[in-house]
Amino acid sequence: VTVSLLTLTTDFGDDSSYVAAMKGVLFSINPGIRFLDLSHNIPPQDLRYTAYFLAGCVPFFPAGTLHVIVVDPGVGTDRALLHVEAGGQQLLVPDNGCWTLAAAILDPPLQVRQLTEPRFWRRPVSATFHGRDILAPVAAHLTLGVRADQLGPVASDWVSFDPPQPTITPTRISGEVVVVDPFGNLLSNIPGEAFRALGTCRVHIGSCEVERIVRSYGEAPPGTVVALISSSGVLEIACAQGSAARALGVGVGTPVEVVAGTMSS
Amino acid sequence: VTVSLLTLTTDFGDDSSYVAAMKGVLFSINPGIRFLDLSHNIPPQDLRYTAYFLAGCVPFFPAGTLHVIVVDPGVGTDRALLHVEAGGQQLLVPDNGCWTLAAAILDPPLQVRQLTEPRFWRRPVSATFHGRDILAPVAAHLTLGVRADQLGPVASDWVSFDPPQPTITPTRISGEVVVVDPFGNLLSNIPGEAFRALGTCRVHIGSCEVERIVRSYGEAPPGTVVALISSSGVLEIACAQGSAARALGVGVGTPVEVVAGTMSS
Amino acid sequence: VTVSLLTLTTDFGDDSSYVAAMKGVLFSINPGIRFLDLSHNIPPQDLRYTAYFLAGCVPFFPAGTLHVIVVDPGVGTDRALLHVEAGGQQLLVPDNGCWTLAAAILDPPLQVRQLTEPRFWRRPVSATFHGRDILAPVAAHLTLGVRADQLGPVASDWVSFDPPQPTITPTRISGEVVVVDPFGNLLSNIPGEAFRALGTCRVHIGSCEVERIVRSYGEAPPGTVVALISSSGVLEIACAQGSAARALGVGVGTPVEVVAGTMSS
Repeated sequence: VTVSLLTLTTDFGDDSSYVAAMKGVLFSINPGIRFLDLSHNIPPQDLRYTAYFLAGCVPFFPAGTLHVIVVDPGVGTDRALLHVEAGGQQLLVPDNGCWTLAAAILDPPLQVRQLTEPRFWRRPVSATFHGRDILAPVAAHLTLGVRADQLGPVASDWVSFDPPQPTITPTRISGEVVVVDPFGNLLSNIPGEAFRALGTCRVHIGSCEVERIVRSYGEAPPGTVVALISSSGVLEIACAQGSAARALGVGVGTPVEVVAGTMSS
Repeated sequence: VTVSLLTLTTDFGDDSSYVAAMKGVLFSINPGIRFLDLSHNIPPQDLRYTAYFLAGCVPFFPAGTLHVIVVDPGVGTDRALLHVEAGGQQLLVPDNGCWTLAAAILDPPLQVRQLTEPRFWRRPVSATFHGRDILAPVAAHLTLGVRADQLGPVASDWVSFDPPQPTITPTRISGEVVVVDPFGNLLSNIPGEAFRALGTCRVHIGSCEVERIVRSYGEAPPGTVVALISSSGVLEIACAQGSAARALGVGVGTPVEVVAGTMSS
Repeated sequence: VTVSLLTLTTDFGDDSSYVAAMKGVLFSINPGIRFLDLSHNIPPQDLRYTAYFLAGCVPFFPAGTLHVIVVDPGVGTDRALLHVEAGGQQLLVPDNGCWTLAAAILDPPLQVRQLTEPRFWRRPVSATFHGRDILAPVAAHLTLGVRADQLGPVASDWVSFDPPQPTITPTRISGEVVVVDPFGNLLSNIPGEAFRALGTCRVHIGSCEVERIVRSYGEAPPGTVVALISSSGVLEIACAQGSAARALGVGVGTPVEVVAGTMSS
């Protein structure tokens, strides 16, 4: 597997020198490297956010992409660092589960290796910045033609992220908000198909009832709380031309209930 | 018109996976694509802000640049998506007027087309994310040599952004703040030439009077509220080494008055 | 010295058109230019922050890199603009000292020039945006092969940033917090070697005592205030899985004291 494109995702913040230092390391090893930033504003150490973030973008990249992900609350402990191949893409990640939701969307085969070969690392390796000292150098070496099997042995187990699962019956679906996007839209863990299969229904979020079920935001007057199928295919609660998170005062973890039957009037 | 450079501007926020998903789509269609980020922190759905943002940067780009702009409160309604050619540059934008202020600065000719050819789109097209499903794929196809006339028919009308106009008399100019920049500098809609033509004058903003008229921030002691000609050529109110927006408690829409005559002492 | 890579660092904010305008100027002069963003979220006009930011990343870049830094509270005054060569890298910076801490880490020789040749600038030059009108055009010309000696005369003095120095005795080190990173970790000006040389010791920050001295964050239970050697080699105070800045209510300038001897129990 050759690398045609490198992406960077961290929780370092856009104002820190940590991202810049990683970029310096990449170019020091491969002056011709090509990379792009996905985000450096992942909420600090938020593995759940990272898991949904990666699931929402990694599947859109082509085979040959290498993603470096540095959200690493366990840095300096004995948690492993991993090289993952899935669906022709590659990831370099701490073994904290943030990548498994994305990998499950990609086609097999899945192969996971532990990074154990220090010859591809910076020296000395600090105890608190493996993004700069291990992941960035390994990524740069991969772009220069180093093969995955040179990085370390195949791993047989790893930490998995277990997303909260909805409960689905023929007349009711119970789920929860799993992501709040930058517009304040509330993305649930309820699959769009399950929602559609229920037919006419009512949608409750926390102690509120959604006013309208729509296809897109613009179908309702400004300020209306609506439910729709999101661009990622899940049930979404939004506020037309506003923020549902702010309007309803809710966030990640808030229960979402869909009940078959007509809306009360 | 060939595309030599692609830029991205959105209101998706730096922490969302939406920008990253668009980048994945671009690379999936053209693995050799070259792009750069202008901003992903446009205030959500703020078309006025977008209009001034684009007017402040698009004119500095060379012919051959293609700008993709996704600030799209009307996504999923029947608003059109447009391909615009102006002054040798191209834009892909929702038909909401956010681009017209910038285009008016560019040289003619201006040509506008509606995007109607689904063969250049992702399938299926979601109801809420046309940036990923229509604009990004169309942009990638343009970089591969697809011609504008393949995208859809020429449009003869579109939504225009009408910027607030100042009132200019020989002894007084009345305008307003149209942009607050990240330093808290207040950019008005009063042209620098009109301001200069007034000669000696006094500048009022809201209920305050500006203390000094200067050429650059550093000419006044820290904390002084000053007026000057901005780098974009309009009357600007600033606070030396501080934020005028915060110091004066004002923002977009605050009236700005310039009155011929010497300052009161 | 040829330029193989260009980086941009500003305090313009990710939502302003100023960064985008600079990028337009770069591409207008050299359509094939290759650049990367280090940060555009430097706190406005904060030269001290910039100094530590650059010291934390510039040394990781390879020879041949050109860094453009636009943090420029003195724009429009008679402060000079400089071209700096240090350790095979180049910087274009206002003469405000923000670069000297980074340059001191790089290998000699150091050569500094004043930018005095307007033929490499945009015309007209505004009084408030030399990043767009002088630094970006000069940078683009350097990538096209213009030599440093064409930009202006060698300078013999310039503004220096004088970082606060710790006081080091055989039994006590007195320093202060100089950077708060995005995680709320507190980076001091106390060298890691001096800290280690003290042997068993106690660490005080403001009026608090650090609970544990560790090698990495993960060694202490969540919420513990710890001291460790940072990835940049200085004494750092952190809060395991939290923000030390928030937990302790302290920031830049807070005194840090290291005293030889065992911790009180």
